[in-house]
Amino acid sequence: MRPKNDRFLRALLREPVDCTPVWLMRQAGRYLPEYCETRRRAGDFLSLCKSPSLACEVTLQPLARYDLDAAILFSDILTVPDAMGLGLYFAEGEGPKFERPLREEWAIRDLQAPDPNVHLRYVMDAVAEIRRALADSVPLIGFSGSPFTLACYMVEGGGSADFRTLKTMLYDRPDLLHRILEVNAQAVTDYLNAQIECGAQAVQLFDTWGGALSAAAYNEFSLNYLQKVVQGLKKTHNGERIPCIVFTKGGGQWLEAIASIGCDAVGLDWTTDIGDARRRIGDKVALQGNFDPMALFASPDKVAAEARRIVDSFGGGSGHVFNLGHGINQFTPPENVTTLVDTVHNHSRKNSRQSS
Amino acid sequence: MRPKNDRFLRALLREPVDCTPVWLMRQAGRYLPEYCETRRRAGDFLSLCKSPSLACEVTLQPLARYDLDAAILFSDILTVPDAMGLGLYFAEGEGPKFERPLREEWAIRDLQAPDPNVHLRYVMDAVAEIRRALADSVPLIGFSGSPFTLACYMVEGGGSADFRTLKTMLYDRPDLLHRILEVNAQAVTDYLNAQIECGAQAVQLFDTWGGALSAAAYNEFSLNYLQKVVQGLKKTHNGERIPCIVFTKGGGQWLEAIASIGCDAVGLDWTTDIGDARRRIGDKVALQGNFDPMALFASPDKVAAEARRIVDSFGGGSGHVFNLGHGINQFTPPENVTTLVDTVHNHSRKNSRQSS
Repeated sequence: MRPKNDRFLRALLREPVDCTPVWLMRQAGRYLPEYCETRRRAGDFLSLCKSPSLACEVTLQPLARYDLDAAILFSDILTVPDAMGLGLYFAEGEGPKFERPLREEWAIRDLQAPDPNVHLRYVMDAVAEIRRALADSVPLIGFSGSPFTLACYMVEGGGSADFRTLKTMLYDRPDLLHRILEVNAQAVTDYLNAQIECGAQAVQLFDTWGGALSAAAYNEFSLNYLQKVVQGLKKTHNGERIPCIVFTKGGGQWLEAIASIGCDAVGLDWTTDIGDARRRIGDKVALQGNFDPMALFASPDKVAAEARRIVDSFGGGSGHVFNLGHGINQFTPPENVTTLVDTVHNHSRKNSRQSS
Repeated sequence: MRPKNDRFLRALLREPVDCTPVWLMRQAGRYLPEYCETRRRAGDFLSLCKSPSLACEVTLQPLARYDLDAAILFSDILTVPDAMGLGLYFAEGEGPKFERPLREEWAIRDLQAPDPNVHLRYVMDAVAEIRRALADSVPLIGFSGSPFTLACYMVEGGGSADFRTLKTMLYDRPDLLHRILEVNAQAVTDYLNAQIECGAQAVQLFDTWGGALSAAAYNEFSLNYLQKVVQGLKKTHNGERIPCIVFTKGGGQWLEAIASIGCDAVGLDWTTDIGDARRRIGDKVALQGNFDPMALFASPDKVAAEARRIVDSFGGGSGHVFNLGHGINQFTPPENVTTLVDTVHNHSRKNSRQSS
């Protein structure tokens, strides 16, 4: 059964909608005081991720404040390599790190896809609890990092400005990187399918670092494995289609290729003109995006103007899920999000009335 | 008079060449022990930039080691805002900073383009000294940051991961940013024309941060002012054409637009396939690029294979200047640069023999 508000699912499947649906990457996050309060109670970020009831609590917070059309599972993209035994931790102010980065040939040969129902049980419990709490009001999005993006963190041992370690492996020992990516693709497929079994009604693959590659390397090391995952995903669950969104940050040059791997929607960062993207890939897939998160620091009338510009650039009809082009910044004024969400709904509703 | 080795100038003007010319962004830099030695003698980075004889010394160092087809003025892209009075300094391990970031409306109204022959005399002296020292062996490239990239540093007061301050101004007070960009465009035009008068035989505009903008904002705030600069540049000096290269990092989606502003060549970062770029913009301009700087960390045979792949992807004929897609990394093994430069020359010479 579809949720009462099914605009998001309808737009992904390019069915008619009354107005453009909107959700925001990282919508449950530090810009919300209530999130910071829950996180304080949890103790630290990883404890928050690992507690199904607290993850459920923060997932619902932005929906209480804003008229959003979807919820997204609160979790971290690095839960999968953590479940592989790499030892995820967060050094204060430094982002995610792994205690045991994956660099030795023997460790790469030993790498195995975890069983999500065992090693990632806390995520599955969170998905089920959030689905119950949503009570079919709006759809729940499950997600995972892409095989390549996970490999970046696994090999570098954390974030990186230039991916020197990863790229040295890519150019020097492509066989080792392919072995990691094979395991990651299996792990991500299993992980997303388990989320779907537990109640996720759409899934998104976050390929945060694919855009750091050359076109040739992107095809070989990122897109290739995104395609394996997409092809291995359950297409329906309990009779409902489960749409799949692929988002490569910095992937604007490769949209035609991304749109061809079997996904239902392609996410755009803010650098791509969404109207151009639609002209390039036609109505093959839906498009998601692509408001510059930094534009949320302008005054409300400028936020509204930029939101209208993007809605107009897409140009009407179904197939657009409004979102940011990247996760919301932690210093965003929360009241500007109200302006953003309401402007998207009102402006696109007006447009759809005019065109019908 | 053209230098003895004029391959670089010929490729930029799409005249026939015996093989593909090559130079490397940041070729005089910290990966060379002799550079580190000179910098130690200078005391600090800014003193090195401000000493014409030391700047000349480091400019020539990579030419002594490698068979490069051009020299590039050793300087910093922030000399212009420094000459505007913003107070450039380098905090150890933190990158460039300004003592007086440009944020107040009165300061923006008061901003003026400096006279390069007065306030940037040390740069002009370095250009003249390097030209004399090169003795017409290879051409000398002059350069500047783009109006937008300079504005990023001026408003942020240094580097930034998200350009929050700059983008808040862009979305909220575009009039103020346009005022800065008008002054910067005039300053950059004057600066590059003065470098040409002193002996620069080609010029490059580095638009390091234009790729952080939405397509619409890129056109309005970066490309627009790049075009003003290009249109204001001296096209010839002492009877020789002075070619102009425009490089927007992250600009792969906008190559057609960049190629239309009147420049002779477009620089590509490593994410764009150079063969696709050539198909998209035809023979309108030359192309410069685009080896991933991180591929220089692989073993020599892999470095050579990746270099050959790019030469082959361009596909023969003139109009290709081989370069990295970004500045060379400070930890690069210097011996791999020998492999890179020699492979480009040998492989493209073989190709040009086969096709003739």
